[in-house]
Amino acid sequence: MENKNDSITRQEEDFAQWYTDVCRKAELMDYSSVKGFIIYRPYGYAIWEQIQAYLDHEFKEVGVENVYMPLVIPQSLFDREKEHVEGFAPECLVATQGGPNVLDDKLIIRPTSETLFCEHYAKIIKSYRDLPKQYNQWCSVVRWEKTTRPFLRGSEFLWQEGHTMYETSEEARQDALRMLEIYDSLGRDVLAIPFVKGIKTDKEKFAGAEETYSIEALMPDGKALQSGTTHYFGNGFSRAFGIQYQSRSGKLENPYQTSWGVSTRLLGSIIMVHGDDNGLVLPPKVAPIQVVIIPVAQKVPGVLDKAREYKEMLKKAGIRVKLDDSDHTPGWKYAEYEMKGVPVRLEVGPRDIENKVVVLAKRNTGEKKTVNESDILTTVTSLFSEIHKEMYQKAFNYLLEHTTEVHSLDELKAALDKGGYAKMMWCGDEACENKIKELYQATARCLPFDEMSFGDTCPVCGKKADKVVFFAKAY
Amino acid sequence: MENKNDSITRQEEDFAQWYTDVCRKAELMDYSSVKGFIIYRPYGYAIWEQIQAYLDHEFKEVGVENVYMPLVIPQSLFDREKEHVEGFAPECLVATQGGPNVLDDKLIIRPTSETLFCEHYAKIIKSYRDLPKQYNQWCSVVRWEKTTRPFLRGSEFLWQEGHTMYETSEEARQDALRMLEIYDSLGRDVLAIPFVKGIKTDKEKFAGAEETYSIEALMPDGKALQSGTTHYFGNGFSRAFGIQYQSRSGKLENPYQTSWGVSTRLLGSIIMVHGDDNGLVLPPKVAPIQVVIIPVAQKVPGVLDKAREYKEMLKKAGIRVKLDDSDHTPGWKYAEYEMKGVPVRLEVGPRDIENKVVVLAKRNTGEKKTVNESDILTTVTSLFSEIHKEMYQKAFNYLLEHTTEVHSLDELKAALDKGGYAKMMWCGDEACENKIKELYQATARCLPFDEMSFGDTCPVCGKKADKVVFFAKAY
Repeated sequence: MENKNDSITRQEEDFAQWYTDVCRKAELMDYSSVKGFIIYRPYGYAIWEQIQAYLDHEFKEVGVENVYMPLVIPQSLFDREKEHVEGFAPECLVATQGGPNVLDDKLIIRPTSETLFCEHYAKIIKSYRDLPKQYNQWCSVVRWEKTTRPFLRGSEFLWQEGHTMYETSEEARQDALRMLEIYDSLGRDVLAIPFVKGIKTDKEKFAGAEETYSIEALMPDGKALQSGTTHYFGNGFSRAFGIQYQSRSGKLENPYQTSWGVSTRLLGSIIMVHGDDNGLVLPPKVAPIQVVIIPVAQKVPGVLDKAREYKEMLKKAGIRVKLDDSDHTPGWKYAEYEMKGVPVRLEVGPRDIENKVVVLAKRNTGEKKTVNESDILTTVTSLFSEIHKEMYQKAFNYLLEHTTEVHSLDELKAALDKGGYAKMMWCGDEACENKIKELYQATARCLPFDEMSFGDTCPVCGKKADKVVFFAKAY
Repeated sequence: MENKNDSITRQEEDFAQWYTDVCRKAELMDYSSVKGFIIYRPYGYAIWEQIQAYLDHEFKEVGVENVYMPLVIPQSLFDREKEHVEGFAPECLVATQGGPNVLDDKLIIRPTSETLFCEHYAKIIKSYRDLPKQYNQWCSVVRWEKTTRPFLRGSEFLWQEGHTMYETSEEARQDALRMLEIYDSLGRDVLAIPFVKGIKTDKEKFAGAEETYSIEALMPDGKALQSGTTHYFGNGFSRAFGIQYQSRSGKLENPYQTSWGVSTRLLGSIIMVHGDDNGLVLPPKVAPIQVVIIPVAQKVPGVLDKAREYKEMLKKAGIRVKLDDSDHTPGWKYAEYEMKGVPVRLEVGPRDIENKVVVLAKRNTGEKKTVNESDILTTVTSLFSEIHKEMYQKAFNYLLEHTTEVHSLDELKAALDKGGYAKMMWCGDEACENKIKELYQATARCLPFDEMSFGDTCPVCGKKADKVVFFAKAY
């Protein structure tokens, strides 16, 4: 029994294996009998619920309404998007049988719901009074992937997809930027992840979009992970799907559209950005268990009572707390909740009770301190914000240290070999992007906002360059 | 524009058409291009979100954890349930194509997830220490239905499905009863619906269950609507799926299982139980808009400012409030929000402002009263609880008036013709149930808890009867 807490592969040894070990041993997920379809176990799903709660609140504050669209899209409708959008061809799961019947029009299990939203909007948008429409849905989507990895790439994953319609292109573009801002705040204030945010190059933007914006996280193996995108579509889809409204001046117009989404891929970001050789390290804001109470010598009379008293006190204050009074040893429990990334451990034993103190330990640094009983609540609360800041700062420092200005292809290669972003002046020519991809398997992650020019020559072609772009290898 | 608020069919004229009119015109749902797959529009989905919030909180209070299982079930796994459970044969949507490949093992789009939970539990339950497991998932399910009606029967609907495992049969049975209690409290405290709760007859219980419990709501057309069920499975499934754990005494045992669920069918209950010829009447606890503010003569300077002030005040107090400052007439707005069932309307015009008063109108009774500005918040809050009580009481009175003790088949027929429940002493023999179904198309809804015997003879067969059962026609 005491060997339940198997060791996990060390990051240095095999980062990919470390990742898989953590996913499974921290009980975030499990495999099902269908390849690529994972089970989101309670501990993993609870993190997603925290992300949902934050985003859902932020969305509603800016007027977004939730809807639920059908799981299936008729092939005929789906093909209209394919026709409209060159390069849009996700591999799909297709239903061909309904009850005893073979279906005339096959049903695609939704890989994304643009077509359904467009079809619905065409029915309900008649007048400028019906605008804006800011709809979002929380659901799962299916893509028939060949290679899958927990949270990072799956045949089924959970996400939210927002689809909006506006009278003017300016409003729609502002919406795409506003939602990017909300995603960025999720990283900064909740996940303790510093995202690089910016606009995608034409080559990398979403098929059908006029502009794609993204947040990118940097992993400890030096690869970037696109963690969320927002798209400004112009009115191309609304023209293709016949979405028309009577404008304020009485004319028929096509509204302007956006879409935006983040998915359970964010769990992959959290695991990799913060994790260490002992397992998960969770930011306090999304940790399903924020404080674990571990009684020491729990058979000594009074110890469990005291532990329960602390638990109730913390619970009352709205803190997610767990008391582990199982018959495992304290040592086993320390390792177990370290692996699960619980931000704060509270230890209490007979001597502590005598002295009216407890020991608080921080998962992210391992620091321990003894705290008076009366100060538990205030200390725990301030520890949460301290831990959040430290985790953010650590990730931010890593990001800074792995963002390298490059002025030549050699420097680009060196930066990519080191890992992280190669920050480059760029002429804007897709040929240069292609060359970098061909040479180094790196892609333009985005043109980050607010980056200062640091040169005027594209190191690939030598032509005039006025854009700052971040290249990296990516997941 | 002013005729947007089309009249809806009167209930007396055509109840089924009234229902469909309300669903569509109150913008609860819309049809999609796939038959039976509806769109849950924001106003309908928001009611479901309120139900989710209540239940999710109650579930977590008793230790339930949320998970997410795959959308698809391999045909081979699915067939194991079919083999184990006679009579379990939902019509399914079946995927046969994944990307470019024809699938060897077809994938069933989940109609329910018993098999997936059992397969997972078989992997993760090893010891008595791993019990109980109380898992729940919020998801959509697909049944390939021939006849569909919004919310009542759909090819896709939203639900929660709880699946639990316990060491003892007693704990599992208690769990089934506890969850039924939570569903009942949802009706009583949130939806203002008095459910009849009880145990199903063997004929009507869920295939595979040892006991099925249900909550039944009574519709104004006299038909019952099963609104939620909980099942006690014994350890039959866990034996069939090889779920075994080492017990406290060191032996290998099969755990005892339950499942329980409610779905968006509850929206159908709400619509029918409370609605009237003017449309929806929503219980305040789940109304997406609890108070609508309608300014009168809104172009008069100061009116909109005042309306906004009231809106902010109510919003700050946590009330879901909408100010309709559109250019529709006040009359149009009254009708619109009546149709949408908004519990309280607040009217404010120039004269009200002069007198520092507003008019508050209750949707359920139409009563209006003038209230001093300083009393708005307390009055609105007390109106909510008053409205809830009145709605519950009205539905409860209807239930009482339509529950008829019957002592003969003639009385049974008369009670069913009148509409509602025929309350009957029953011998327990399925043949008597079958006969009633054959003669009158009525089914045993349940054996309600705490019903007193009022005779000792089964009116169908004349044999000794010691059970009280409610028969009704049902949706």
